Amino acid sequence: MALPFTFDLDAWAEARERDRMDALASFRERFVIESPELIYLDGNSLGRLPRATMERLATVVGQEWGERLVRGWNEGWLELPQRLGHKLAALVGAEANEVWVADATSVNLFKLLTAFLQYQRRARPQRRRVLTDRFNFPSDLYIVQGVLGLLEGFHLDMPPEEAGADPAEQIMARLGEDVALVTLSHTLFKSGYTYDMAQVTAAVQAAGAVMVWDVSHSVGAVPLDLHGAAADGAVGCTYKYLNGGPGAPAFLYVRRDWQALLHNPISGWFGQQAMFDFDLTYTPAADVRRFASGTPPILALAAIEAGLDMLLEAGMARVRAKSVQQTEYLIRLWEEQLQPLGFTLNSPRQAARRGSHVALGHPAALGIDLALIHEKQVLPDFRAPDNLRLAVAPLYNRFTDIYLAVQRLREVMEEGSYRRYSSAGLKVT
Amino acid sequence: MALPFTFDLDAWAEARERDRMDALASFRERFVIESPELIYLDGNSLGRLPRATMERLATVVGQEWGERLVRGWNEGWLELPQRLGHKLAALVGAEANEVWVADATSVNLFKLLTAFLQYQRRARPQRRRVLTDRFNFPSDLYIVQGVLGLLEGFHLDMPPEEAGADPAEQIMARLGEDVALVTLSHTLFKSGYTYDMAQVTAAVQAAGAVMVWDVSHSVGAVPLDLHGAAADGAVGCTYKYLNGGPGAPAFLYVRRDWQALLHNPISGWFGQQAMFDFDLTYTPAADVRRFASGTPPILALAAIEAGLDMLLEAGMARVRAKSVQQTEYLIRLWEEQLQPLGFTLNSPRQAARRGSHVALGHPAALGIDLALIHEKQVLPDFRAPDNLRLAVAPLYNRFTDIYLAVQRLREVMEEGSYRRYSSAGLKVT
Repeated sequence: MALPFTFDLDAWAEARERDRMDALASFRERFVIESPELIYLDGNSLGRLPRATMERLATVVGQEWGERLVRGWNEGWLELPQRLGHKLAALVGAEANEVWVADATSVNLFKLLTAFLQYQRRARPQRRRVLTDRFNFPSDLYIVQGVLGLLEGFHLDMPPEEAGADPAEQIMARLGEDVALVTLSHTLFKSGYTYDMAQVTAAVQAAGAVMVWDVSHSVGAVPLDLHGAAADGAVGCTYKYLNGGPGAPAFLYVRRDWQALLHNPISGWFGQQAMFDFDLTYTPAADVRRFASGTPPILALAAIEAGLDMLLEAGMARVRAKSVQQTEYLIRLWEEQLQPLGFTLNSPRQAARRGSHVALGHPAALGIDLALIHEKQVLPDFRAPDNLRLAVAPLYNRFTDIYLAVQRLREVMEEGSYRRYSSAGLKVT
Repeated sequence: MALPFTFDLDAWAEARERDRMDALASFRERFVIESPELIYLDGNSLGRLPRATMERLATVVGQEWGERLVRGWNEGWLELPQRLGHKLAALVGAEANEVWVADATSVNLFKLLTAFLQYQRRARPQRRRVLTDRFNFPSDLYIVQGVLGLLEGFHLDMPPEEAGADPAEQIMARLGEDVALVTLSHTLFKSGYTYDMAQVTAAVQAAGAVMVWDVSHSVGAVPLDLHGAAADGAVGCTYKYLNGGPGAPAFLYVRRDWQALLHNPISGWFGQQAMFDFDLTYTPAADVRRFASGTPPILALAAIEAGLDMLLEAGMARVRAKSVQQTEYLIRLWEEQLQPLGFTLNSPRQAARRGSHVALGHPAALGIDLALIHEKQVLPDFRAPDNLRLAVAPLYNRFTDIYLAVQRLREVMEEGSYRRYSSAGLKVT
């Protein structure tokens, strides 16, 4: 590995020692790493490929589809969403029958928001305000807007922009007896700010509203306790820290006591009580399966499992401990080496309020991102207006990765090469 | 291959000769066929695995995901739904920008029905009846019921059961000035009856209503001309005659002039005009992409393409010609050999009204289906109450397959082994 010019042997020894002491270090070998030189810090956008997933896919394609053909449905495919749901439930602090794997995150959010708001319209018709914030992932905001376009009588509310304000305090200050539902991203996609799920959920419910979380940017990196926090509903994606593959099917959570009260608006046959009876009338399954809709994409579903198994084996407590150590380490390096170069810390300083990525602010962040990618074999990403996002995925990122990434970032600043880049490279969060 | 006891050398020679003359015969070699003894007649449920799909998946997993990681989005993944949509458009007689590949069939049907009915409610508020029939695929009926539960003021209507009636005549007889929308399966999943799409669409539109087709059981087997028939909307699946894999993502069609008038209720970021601007407000794409919702499952999407390419190469006219020859051949064998054993023909006799499967009726059809599967290496399927479905997929089914399947069916009847089977084997259409 070429040594960057800013190399400091003591600092390097420290990073190496931290890797040596890392109880999760061996998990890295279970991922496909084609270019050892590449420092991948975008696992909050698309997680790496687990080796076991390649094997699983070869089996599901060549044997289950190729050889067993339609019999595959009776030999495991039909149970796959539930089996994955049980594993996810263990990861997110839910009961086994509170989680279902299906569809895209946006589709699942549509289902839950529509179902909860239809319930609220019946049960609490005076509640017409739906509260979210401008930090929420845009697709979630678009889905909220679509749902409100469909269900008449509700309106959208967001706290005003207020520099330096705490997002949770802003939300809690706007609760009131006209609020039907609050929906938020648990970990914010730009700053990595992470709500105190139990605190916000309790405040929302105390105000008589329903709380729906999007845990896409926290699941697999931050321990979740959806049932313990009594969250009403949640959705999340599986292609970030869960390493499920590009666009992998998402999941939804509905707290047990809600399930019988809610109607899935996309009432397809996979949510039908006895789908192979082919009745002409829809009768929803009694449990969380009623939130299933159409036939699930088996190849994409099968690709999720190996990543879940690794996280369950590692344990979310150890994953989180390493994540915090790594983001703290990155913030220390920022303080020592990058703050003097004009970088700001756009993520919370307090570990408890932070997910597993750190956003560093710089007016030239886009050019810096592109210079790192194209010239330095470092892959972070950029989010407007000025965020360079550096994510640590504890199962495969090393402390030495973080140290080297910061040194290569200093090289980019020293060389000024980032000034050559101006146009955005599109990427998926 | 073991010769069944009912073997007739002249008949076998005829079947062999028809295979020899078959212009599409060589396509069979492009599929994975692990068990040459197995006669697979369930391609209308799950199509076979194209060899090229295995290679494509190995590349998309190992290289695009494993090596290129998040950069894959800029290196082809983002364009994949549109590229597949263009290929599908060529298969279904649509313009290139009228088709999008996304989500499950049921989810797409939800989007189109909701969008069209919202339009009708604004434009033609007196039209409150939604017409379908009991032959429609149950998931479609469930979706209609869900949409009507969501959009107040509409009600569902179906023609009454009437033995021997023509489904198209029944539908056309119920049109009227209060009908907002008609939705039907183009080829019916049990009988294989196939509507005259142009005739029914014209009648529905002449009555002032909107026509939405589900072409799941015809696409890839029956030539479609969605734009030529001026269909308003359509959905279809890709895992049957398109050979896209279990639960492969579905597609939707919206006629060009409708696109700007309709709102996708599931307004996720993949339908946003400039999704990577991360605006807080949803502004739909100008074209059919507005019907996209969340992040698509890339592995499952990538698996679709090889099957589409083969059908485009074969040409739907040749595929249909072979399909008709094969179903006619099967019906002739039924007439000569199976009708005397008590089987009825539950599919239309007229080729123009038939898709690519033939349903044979028998009071013991379920036991016969299971005996064929478990004892005779023949894989058809069963649909209540009495249908043994035998599908021909012209790209890989041979005339000798049909001949042998009928001989093995005769063996089952002769041996009486079907009486041992009583419980249903679950399967996905």
